[in-house]
Amino acid sequence: MIKSRHIEGLEAIVGKENVYSDKAHLIAYSYDATRTRYEPEAVVFPRHEEDVSAVLKYCNEHKIVITPRGAGSGFTGGALPANGGIILGLEKYMNKILEIDFENMVAVVQPGVINMDLQRAAKEVGLFYPPDPASEEYSTLGGNVSENAGGMRAAKYGITKDFVMALRAVRPNGDIIRAGKRTIKDVAGYNIAGILIASEGTLAVITEITLKLIPYPKFTKGYMGIFPSVESAMNAVFKSLASGANPVAMEFLDSLVVQALKEKLGVELPEDAGALLIGDVDGNVSQEVAFQLEILENSFRENGAVDFIVADDEKHREKLWYARRNASPSITIFGSKKLNEDISVPRSLLPKALKNIYEIGDKYGFKVPCFGHAGDGNIHVNVMVDGSNSEELVKGHDAIKEIFELVVSMGGTLSGEHGIGTSKAPFMSIAFNDEELTLFRDLKHAFDPNNILNPGKMGLPS
Amino acid sequence: MIKSRHIEGLEAIVGKENVYSDKAHLIAYSYDATRTRYEPEAVVFPRHEEDVSAVLKYCNEHKIVITPRGAGSGFTGGALPANGGIILGLEKYMNKILEIDFENMVAVVQPGVINMDLQRAAKEVGLFYPPDPASEEYSTLGGNVSENAGGMRAAKYGITKDFVMALRAVRPNGDIIRAGKRTIKDVAGYNIAGILIASEGTLAVITEITLKLIPYPKFTKGYMGIFPSVESAMNAVFKSLASGANPVAMEFLDSLVVQALKEKLGVELPEDAGALLIGDVDGNVSQEVAFQLEILENSFRENGAVDFIVADDEKHREKLWYARRNASPSITIFGSKKLNEDISVPRSLLPKALKNIYEIGDKYGFKVPCFGHAGDGNIHVNVMVDGSNSEELVKGHDAIKEIFELVVSMGGTLSGEHGIGTSKAPFMSIAFNDEELTLFRDLKHAFDPNNILNPGKMGLPS
Repeated sequence: MIKSRHIEGLEAIVGKENVYSDKAHLIAYSYDATRTRYEPEAVVFPRHEEDVSAVLKYCNEHKIVITPRGAGSGFTGGALPANGGIILGLEKYMNKILEIDFENMVAVVQPGVINMDLQRAAKEVGLFYPPDPASEEYSTLGGNVSENAGGMRAAKYGITKDFVMALRAVRPNGDIIRAGKRTIKDVAGYNIAGILIASEGTLAVITEITLKLIPYPKFTKGYMGIFPSVESAMNAVFKSLASGANPVAMEFLDSLVVQALKEKLGVELPEDAGALLIGDVDGNVSQEVAFQLEILENSFRENGAVDFIVADDEKHREKLWYARRNASPSITIFGSKKLNEDISVPRSLLPKALKNIYEIGDKYGFKVPCFGHAGDGNIHVNVMVDGSNSEELVKGHDAIKEIFELVVSMGGTLSGEHGIGTSKAPFMSIAFNDEELTLFRDLKHAFDPNNILNPGKMGLPS
Repeated sequence: MIKSRHIEGLEAIVGKENVYSDKAHLIAYSYDATRTRYEPEAVVFPRHEEDVSAVLKYCNEHKIVITPRGAGSGFTGGALPANGGIILGLEKYMNKILEIDFENMVAVVQPGVINMDLQRAAKEVGLFYPPDPASEEYSTLGGNVSENAGGMRAAKYGITKDFVMALRAVRPNGDIIRAGKRTIKDVAGYNIAGILIASEGTLAVITEITLKLIPYPKFTKGYMGIFPSVESAMNAVFKSLASGANPVAMEFLDSLVVQALKEKLGVELPEDAGALLIGDVDGNVSQEVAFQLEILENSFRENGAVDFIVADDEKHREKLWYARRNASPSITIFGSKKLNEDISVPRSLLPKALKNIYEIGDKYGFKVPCFGHAGDGNIHVNVMVDGSNSEELVKGHDAIKEIFELVVSMGGTLSGEHGIGTSKAPFMSIAFNDEELTLFRDLKHAFDPNNILNPGKMGLPS
């Protein structure tokens, strides 16, 4: 337990008004999107990088555990204070867009900036920040970097790490580190920014992020491919991409999701739709858009698509996307609780992976609706269980474990974009051998010898 | 000194025929493109990953220093055995393209594969590996990853790190590590591949590389912009890019290089050319190529270009590129030895950076011809000295130091693509503060506690 003198010590750094230890606030900062709860012992709001440095130094000296937190919108518990200690809340003060450098197409932001706020600010000057996690309206860029957030547009534009040019961060001992430059090329010194991305706040606290922006695409069109089966859609994914298609997004809905959309939301979809691929293509010239649509249509039809729809206008495009955007809320018809995992496999293995995942679901007696970012191989797999039935929950987790074993055996990963945090920590030994887990521990120790920074995440020691 | 029993120990691992300790071979493995020489005490050729693991384990136990080496074509001494010990030669056996996975657009290679051999193999199946360091015909992909090699096409396609999906590597203790996956998204565990890229063989020995490939572009055209001055060309660089141009390459030649090309090689260039920008644009459709050329021409002319030439055909394109390709050999008219540095700054600062670099040259009395990858902000700065005059050499290095201080003060980097190795190690404290250098040392220690792997590089302890 944090002693009251430590509360005073922290207050002396950030000011009395920036340390909360009342019950209401401790509860408010006890959860994230996993709906698991761990109460912190205090919530501390640094006003600037110097505060972050002083707080970390203080906590390091007194062995007080710290969990950095942005919006608390993560799906795997990265921002949960699973081992008590303090929450370092970066959303209150450190939430400014510091600069949009149009000439170099670069943005400099504090970690508490909401993803969509940057997207909007960039668009105002004709620039584009592509990473678009589903949480874009509320998740913070600090959290996006710490979890290496993905999104729909990753098929063409890549993920958060592909846009991070530089970081400023604070080590547990208070040392302020600059990593990377506002330059395309920089090979001086170790790639510290590279190791901080996706490190889930376990190595250092990110205090400033320099992100690459790109010119906003001039033409965008939406499309939808309608397939008789999951297998035909999954074949169309990798075959169209290997044929040279480069869609912004290529999102997948399986037959269970199609059924749920019809039954729960009354979405009008073709009778014979066993699976859908929905997405956008873009380009600087309309002919590039037409080129992309032609490859997609040809490749989709060669793989059995019964229809290929191109949106006539923005309203039509929104209608096509409506199905995708409502996939997640619709599938509750199959069970009150979804055990939602975001596996990723090499794209050519998607047909086999999906087939085997459904078989695992059948074996345990669960519906497993799947949807997501097929264009980059990242699928959200939802094992639907009765949340009030503890036996079902245990069985559901057994099914998840089997799915992870399958995915890893196919060269895939436990997580395409959600991270490990607390919720996938028990599965780390499926994906990594002892030597790899030892290296993770050695690296953690090098940054944080007293293990004060977000301990117990990613399967690391508590 | 390595004792003879250790030579026998190493022979027992890789076979007697794969350990050289005769003088001729020690000399052959004593240099790289820096022309500095350090003789190793033995050269060991591992046949496969298991050999690498066993050799490292042996050397770790006996505290024998190891320098991994591909082609030895680096410009900063990364592959020089500056502290003796053994050279681990990865070019002899571990030089196979293991797989071109067309369906997932991925290549798997051993570290000793020549860059251009992969480019050719990819092109045969319609795929493209863009990173093209000037050494592409002889440098190895293991070296490219270890130095995070760049090249001409970085302006559009990025650098080596943007194509590395996964690595296999061996830690100094012999542990074999898999890092990354053949998937676009993977956020499970620390980004070990990210920290191994550009680590100059100081953390682990890379034994296998999984690289992303992309569809080969269908249309390419060459262009040349002719400018009255360096300043006008440098303004055109960042203004055309901020206007939405996305050229494959945008290479710069300054007025001294233009003069040298005319005088030494008789290259026909316009009388009034004070600077040139040469490059390519590409696209899936010819209209995209036209769109790119239009932005470039407009933006170049707005910034004072006196002419903008588009290549009619491949032969014409080669003629435009001839000037760029011969920049480096031509400039020896200004001095027998070039002190060649590859600085990088945010692109909007290129006009000021170049102006100040010439002023530093003037102050010391040296010609400083500059050329290179302006499209990504990375310029090769050549301080031309009389190599036989030791006083000039000292003065030349003083000028280089001043150039580095300038570049770092502008938010730039010591090296855009060559790395630090031995030759830039003395300048690391210009670019990094004590806290950052301490973190580098902590990280090195975490991977390599006995400091056997390429010690003394990047300013790390010998």
